[in-house]
Amino acid sequence: MATKIITISREFGSGGRSVGREVADRLGIPFYDKELVEQIALESGFAPTFVEENGEHSPSKSRFAYAFSQQTIPGIMNGMSTADFLWSIQCSVIQQLADKGPCVIVGRNADYILKDRKNVLNVFIHADIDYRAERIVRLYGESEKSPENRLHEKDKRRKVNYQHYTGRIWGSAKNYDLCLNSGTLGIQSCVDLIVSAATK
Amino acid sequence: MATKIITISREFGSGGRSVGREVADRLGIPFYDKELVEQIALESGFAPTFVEENGEHSPSKSRFAYAFSQQTIPGIMNGMSTADFLWSIQCSVIQQLADKGPCVIVGRNADYILKDRKNVLNVFIHADIDYRAERIVRLYGESEKSPENRLHEKDKRRKVNYQHYTGRIWGSAKNYDLCLNSGTLGIQSCVDLIVSAATK
Repeated sequence: MATKIITISREFGSGGRSVGREVADRLGIPFYDKELVEQIALESGFAPTFVEENGEHSPSKSRFAYAFSQQTIPGIMNGMSTADFLWSIQCSVIQQLADKGPCVIVGRNADYILKDRKNVLNVFIHADIDYRAERIVRLYGESEKSPENRLHEKDKRRKVNYQHYTGRIWGSAKNYDLCLNSGTLGIQSCVDLIVSAATK
Repeated sequence: MATKIITISREFGSGGRSVGREVADRLGIPFYDKELVEQIALESGFAPTFVEENGEHSPSKSRFAYAFSQQTIPGIMNGMSTADFLWSIQCSVIQQLADKGPCVIVGRNADYILKDRKNVLNVFIHADIDYRAERIVRLYGESEKSPENRLHEKDKRRKVNYQHYTGRIWGSAKNYDLCLNSGTLGIQSCVDLIVSAATK
C-alpha cells in the first residue's frame, strides 16, 4: 500500500481539518496542523497564536500596517518583512516534515511548497456558504459578525495570501489532484475518497 | 446503491470521455456523448458535425462572424443567434435525458444546466499540458498545429463558451462536487473514485 504525503487545503468551515485528521488516523501517518504551528513558532520566535493567525492569511485590516512594515530583527530576519520571514520559516518547516515521510499537512500552502516532490497528493476541500455557515456556528459558536461575513473575510485572506506567495489562483482545480465538496459529498465520503486516492 | 446523474466536464485530452464511458458501464447506466449530439442535431435541424463542433465551444476564428450573426430561420429560431438557438436546444435535450433517470453526461455545460436538480454528481477532469499533449497525439495523431496549440485553442474555446452561458469560471473547484487530475491519479483511479462518490 503506497502512502503519500497528503496536503489538504480547505475553505474555512468546510471540515478540511477534520477530514485530514481522520485520513491520517486511517493511514496511520502523522497529522500536522497544530504541531506545524508550534514548530514554526519555535523556529521563528513568534508566538504560536501569531503564527496561527498569520501563517496562511493576508493581514486583517487592523494588522495591515504592521504586516507590511519592514520591521526586522537584524541578523535574524535578514531585511525581510514579518510576513516574508514567517513564510520562509514555514517553507523550511514543511520541507523538514515532508522529509520524514508520509503525513497529512493541513493548510499553509503546502501544496505549493512541496510542488517539486513526487509522491504528494494535493487535496482541496470546499463547500457552499450555507453549509459552512451552519457548521462554524455549530462548532465555534456565534460571534459579533454574521457567519457569512466571517467566512468571506477568512476566505479572502487565505486567497490573497495564497496568490501572493504562490502566484496561483486559490480554488482552481488545476492546482490539486483531488478537489472535494464536503457539503454535497459528506465528511466521511471525503475521507474515504482521499484514502482511496492515496493508496492506489 | 443510490446512483446519480453524473455530469463530466473535462479539459480536452484529459481522458474525461473515456472515464465517463467506463463509469457508465460500471454502474449500468446510459452514457450520453454522441447520442446527445445526435439528439440536439435532430431537434435543431443542424448537422451533427456542426453541433459537435459548436455545442460547447466558443466559435473558432474562422466562424467568428458566422456565430455572432443574427441569422435566423423565422418562426424556428425566434430571433436568436445560431449559438443561442443551439444552447436552448442543448438545455432542453439535457433536461429530457436527465428526466429519464441516472446516466452519465459528458460535456456541454450539463453541470450548469442541471444545477437546480438534486441527485446530480458534477465532476471535472483535468490534467497538465504534457500529459494531455502526449495523449492526444497517441489517440488522434499529429496535425499541422503542435499538440500544445491544439490544447490551448480547445481549452480557450470551452472556457469562453462556459463563461458566456453560465457566468461561472471554467475549472473553478467550487462548480463541482469532485475534481480529478487524471494525469496524476490515472484514468482507472478516476473511474473508481467517481463510482465510489456516486454510490454512497
